[in-house]
Amino acid sequence: MNLILLSPDDLTGDNRACISDPRRLGHLHNVHRSTPGDLLTVGIQGGAMGKARLTELTAERAYFTLETMDEPPPAPLPVHLVLALPRPRMLARTLEHVTALGVKDITLLHTKRVEKSYWQSPELRTEKIHQHLVLGLEQARDTQLPNVTLSKGFRPFLEEQLPSLLKQYRGLLAHPGMPHACPRDVKYPTLLLVGPEGGFIAWEVEQLLAAGCEGMHLGPRILRVETAVTALLSRLF
Amino acid sequence: MNLILLSPDDLTGDNRACISDPRRLGHLHNVHRSTPGDLLTVGIQGGAMGKARLTELTAERAYFTLETMDEPPPAPLPVHLVLALPRPRMLARTLEHVTALGVKDITLLHTKRVEKSYWQSPELRTEKIHQHLVLGLEQARDTQLPNVTLSKGFRPFLEEQLPSLLKQYRGLLAHPGMPHACPRDVKYPTLLLVGPEGGFIAWEVEQLLAAGCEGMHLGPRILRVETAVTALLSRLF
Repeated sequence: MNLILLSPDDLTGDNRACISDPRRLGHLHNVHRSTPGDLLTVGIQGGAMGKARLTELTAERAYFTLETMDEPPPAPLPVHLVLALPRPRMLARTLEHVTALGVKDITLLHTKRVEKSYWQSPELRTEKIHQHLVLGLEQARDTQLPNVTLSKGFRPFLEEQLPSLLKQYRGLLAHPGMPHACPRDVKYPTLLLVGPEGGFIAWEVEQLLAAGCEGMHLGPRILRVETAVTALLSRLF
Repeated sequence: MNLILLSPDDLTGDNRACISDPRRLGHLHNVHRSTPGDLLTVGIQGGAMGKARLTELTAERAYFTLETMDEPPPAPLPVHLVLALPRPRMLARTLEHVTALGVKDITLLHTKRVEKSYWQSPELRTEKIHQHLVLGLEQARDTQLPNVTLSKGFRPFLEEQLPSLLKQYRGLLAHPGMPHACPRDVKYPTLLLVGPEGGFIAWEVEQLLAAGCEGMHLGPRILRVETAVTALLSRLF
């Protein structure tokens, strides 16, 4: 927790804040080993970052006074990530990684090789997803929550969402065996599509290319989804 | 397991192999759902990759006949990674990530902010490290095991190992706040130094820079070690 991310509920008005959830309190007590008077790095969800003075810390609550709150959050990556839904534990870690890296738009997509049972996972509950996003923001010192959209059908995504996305973004389809290598240091808004373990099936690749996406690969090595997504984002931006 | 990595013990001569460990057998039975006659991707540890025919599969053993074994493993990354020892679970995942990405030389280093207890972790036992390296190779389809060296003192590393390493490699120290951004697409042999959670201390940074390393950063976001290492390798190579 490199930043205490204050939600609207934590703000008590008059430049004061109070947190009472066990996770953050435990972190203040056991990791930061904070004591009243400490100046801590905080951010307001969706807003600025800065320093807050810890005024009181008990087992149940931590009270803060906001001091200088004039630092903007780091710039987001110009990307909309479309990710075939990974298995639940991989999803959790991948959401944290990509949020820490600065992704602000995430679509979780059903494809042929996504196990249908994954869509029933408790990891997809709104509050669980929110938790992983918050962990990513706290890690990276950011305040802007990503938007996460669930797209449970490949064809509806292809027909109803992709065409308008490709008007705003250049579509890059990461897939082994494509003729071009992943570009580096791109400056344009990018729609990055990443398949599941086992990849997109040939028909899905054809459809995505026909819709206007450009194929690219990351080399001969087969990477786990979480490794591949981090590697792609880091090479692209 | 995208490749069955055959160790010398698995080879029974005459282009045949036999595996009997529960992990790989379980994978053949339950994930690949293999049956005799299947042609599977295999690699010989330290050697070539190719196809092998599964000739017999029981609960205790799988027998193969090697067929075309003429594919070289993918090229390694031209890097020696010097990583401050991460906490045990992070170490396990990071070893798998970097092995899958093609790192062949890894030094795990003690620094001021590495908890001393980490050096007592069972994850550092030779056979545990070997296990994570094998998982990385099986994931990426590679046969060349990385060398892992434990460097339990910062000063001995600095004085006895670093000078000769810097004769073979360009040293790049990843550290927040350095003036230059991480370079992209480098072609030269690189010694990449990555600090622990919380970073190198100022004295360590000074010493590494004085020894001839160049500082560089990955941007304003604070990343977990496993995310940072993947992002650095992907951007550099």
